[in-house]
Amino acid sequence: MTRQMLAAALAALLASTAFAAPGPGPAALRDAALHDDVAFDILEGLTTEVGQRLAATPAEARGRDWAVARLKALGFANVHVEPFTMPVWLRGDESAEIVAPFPQKLVVAALGNSSATPAGGITAQIVAFDGLAALAKAPAEAVRGRIVFVNHHMTAQQDGGSYGEIGAIRRTGPSIASKKGALAIVIRSIGTDHHRVAHTGVQNWSDGAQPIPAAALSVPDAEQLARIVARGKPVKMHLALGARMAGTGTSGNVVAEVPGRDPKAGIILVGGHLDSWDLGTGTIDDASGLAIVTAAAKRIMATGRPRRTIRIVWFGAEEPGGFGGEAYAKAHAGDRHVLVGESDSGADKVWRFELTAADRTVPIADRLALALSPLGITRGRDAAHGGTDVEPIAAAQGAPVIDLSQDTTRYFDIHHTADDTLDKVDPEQLRQNVAAWTAVLAIAAEDAEELGPVSPTAAK
Amino acid sequence: MTRQMLAAALAALLASTAFAAPGPGPAALRDAALHDDVAFDILEGLTTEVGQRLAATPAEARGRDWAVARLKALGFANVHVEPFTMPVWLRGDESAEIVAPFPQKLVVAALGNSSATPAGGITAQIVAFDGLAALAKAPAEAVRGRIVFVNHHMTAQQDGGSYGEIGAIRRTGPSIASKKGALAIVIRSIGTDHHRVAHTGVQNWSDGAQPIPAAALSVPDAEQLARIVARGKPVKMHLALGARMAGTGTSGNVVAEVPGRDPKAGIILVGGHLDSWDLGTGTIDDASGLAIVTAAAKRIMATGRPRRTIRIVWFGAEEPGGFGGEAYAKAHAGDRHVLVGESDSGADKVWRFELTAADRTVPIADRLALALSPLGITRGRDAAHGGTDVEPIAAAQGAPVIDLSQDTTRYFDIHHTADDTLDKVDPEQLRQNVAAWTAVLAIAAEDAEELGPVSPTAAK
Repeated sequence: MTRQMLAAALAALLASTAFAAPGPGPAALRDAALHDDVAFDILEGLTTEVGQRLAATPAEARGRDWAVARLKALGFANVHVEPFTMPVWLRGDESAEIVAPFPQKLVVAALGNSSATPAGGITAQIVAFDGLAALAKAPAEAVRGRIVFVNHHMTAQQDGGSYGEIGAIRRTGPSIASKKGALAIVIRSIGTDHHRVAHTGVQNWSDGAQPIPAAALSVPDAEQLARIVARGKPVKMHLALGARMAGTGTSGNVVAEVPGRDPKAGIILVGGHLDSWDLGTGTIDDASGLAIVTAAAKRIMATGRPRRTIRIVWFGAEEPGGFGGEAYAKAHAGDRHVLVGESDSGADKVWRFELTAADRTVPIADRLALALSPLGITRGRDAAHGGTDVEPIAAAQGAPVIDLSQDTTRYFDIHHTADDTLDKVDPEQLRQNVAAWTAVLAIAAEDAEELGPVSPTAAK
Repeated sequence: MTRQMLAAALAALLASTAFAAPGPGPAALRDAALHDDVAFDILEGLTTEVGQRLAATPAEARGRDWAVARLKALGFANVHVEPFTMPVWLRGDESAEIVAPFPQKLVVAALGNSSATPAGGITAQIVAFDGLAALAKAPAEAVRGRIVFVNHHMTAQQDGGSYGEIGAIRRTGPSIASKKGALAIVIRSIGTDHHRVAHTGVQNWSDGAQPIPAAALSVPDAEQLARIVARGKPVKMHLALGARMAGTGTSGNVVAEVPGRDPKAGIILVGGHLDSWDLGTGTIDDASGLAIVTAAAKRIMATGRPRRTIRIVWFGAEEPGGFGGEAYAKAHAGDRHVLVGESDSGADKVWRFELTAADRTVPIADRLALALSPLGITRGRDAAHGGTDVEPIAAAQGAPVIDLSQDTTRYFDIHHTADDTLDKVDPEQLRQNVAAWTAVLAIAAEDAEELGPVSPTAAK
């Protein structure tokens, strides 16, 4: 080896990943993050000083203002809002009561895109179904002119498993009931708690389904109604919902960056959603996700400039149907996303990671597994999902996706209810999330390895 | 011993307690009660078919009708209602929100005897206090024209210990605030949960205190308000309460008996209260108590006629201030009560008993201890309290009192809230209660020993 050859080799070595970012490595950054206070501070601030942030309302706009101020104060670059317009849905007053045979009030919350009842409400007989399949196969004459009630038996699970299946009652039950001529529908909340707080959530009218009043009863109220129905006497309910579509409004995505050293190295996109339902303070859904990814990105920023740009997005209007994610994918079609991920299942600990890459045997997956293992995080065998906000850009570009799966055992006790408040967050588990995302960003932002693009088959 | 002497001795022996009631003894009755279904059936029926039972309202009247029908169906004797009149308080609509600096809605519930706000509500600055003593020593000029907020730090305890002390914020805070010129008062709910359900409860205006709007915030809302106050900016609240006094109404005690063999042996009175607050279904407070003592009395009745009469009372109007207990004491001043007791702390297991008798060393206390010990119930060292419903008759007659202290660790999570619903009851613990009261009744209804009367000093 000549001196020139040695010098060239040394230069190449110094320019390589391992030497490019002096300072603490992923393991040290991860462990330091276990003492993080930035995430809780974001979480406490946003949920206290703004509270609920219903999409395309003044509350969400106050959330964007808060976000811009805080992200700038934290030192991020390119902090800005990317506005978009969307249809607005508002809740209004709501009430439900059993009129006969046993008069009593029930706790109810309209579902997203529900229509209002006529002023003064409606009174009609209940027709009850156990599960969506029973409603789907019921003859229209059994449903016509009645208020449909759909019960179910959702259980709490670490992997949120039953939300997909049981959640179909909320997502499609109203359209099915409407097409059979129901006056209205009340479902048992898609939730696993036993508190008098109803779980709202979005539903979309399928083609040809006339909007009707659609609401969820709290779980204790649904159980009460089921007991009353089981007595065998006709059950009459009075339902009054003030829910309504309110024209077009403005939402927006708040974007911030840790600029990378190498403009050709692509962008790592991590996010959560800024909007929330209007009943709680949107703490576990999803101020937690914002707080976690932002605190992790700040830790990488504090060590110097990473090779790849880390882009944080606080998405707007996720709850009513992923408007922010769609707007982002359209606005950023020209950016090269080398990895995307989202935190949107609360603040309880991460227990698994999944990676969708061009090849599932990419070496980086092993390095991630090694870095996450000390946090009690195992490597999953499935494709990553990504979440509503990042799915559109991932699908459009075949971008690699990472999931850090959070323990959702408690999540569906709280999700979409008035109970989604700060006291539900365990600061220790929140920190474990920050540590996990810090490790992921520390590795993925420096690593020279390319994970994608992902073919449509690999993503399945 | 002559034949006559022998015959007389044999007759005396046969007439004695041990031989008078053939059939299963207290231990066997107790153990059989661990398989009881009667209590849960009463509990499920009353809370499903009637729901909430606010005092002196049609809902409580439906509860009395239900009670009479059920107690007759269970085979009790002398089932009847003893009506009385009382002032009626009604809730009406209610809402609270922070107007500035961080606009958001709060969950609120008026306290008993609260007055209404003017139509449209009031908006005023918050003055916050940590605990009742801080409010009590505040100068009037700090309070005048403001909405008082009182925070506290109640913790869950097996013996309900802190309810007495912390509960003073609810019982007397509104009068103190009123006398200092407050426009209204909102307290942190007297409760230990973290759900968006406020804990109502009675408060009475002290002499010279002008009624003002008085309400409780749910615990998460109180914590949110405390965080907002801690930011140091003036906090403005809008409060609208429709609560009002609504003239005089009728409540009543529902009485049923297991008649005794010996009319001179006196009456054992056991009860609970039929009325409830209007937010939940009055399950742990206090359909549980009714169900427990009624199921226990039915078990004694099923073995034949006891020596002493067992009287069950489902008291009316306990919550707004013990109107049923006062009415009972007046109506039954001529009856000889040899033991009184009440179940009114939920449906979780009994862990201790207390007995107030003429002499604390009465042998029956040992027999009770022996019979209750297998249920995990220890003997306490204090006087029995009895509860709001039976205290007036106990005080008037010096009647011996028994307490079966229930585990209240969960009680103040649920008590006086919308969350007081059937799902909160653990059927196994409910059965342990039935077993405990069955053992007490089996012993006390047959025993020849007299426990009272109790002198005023012994009761302390």
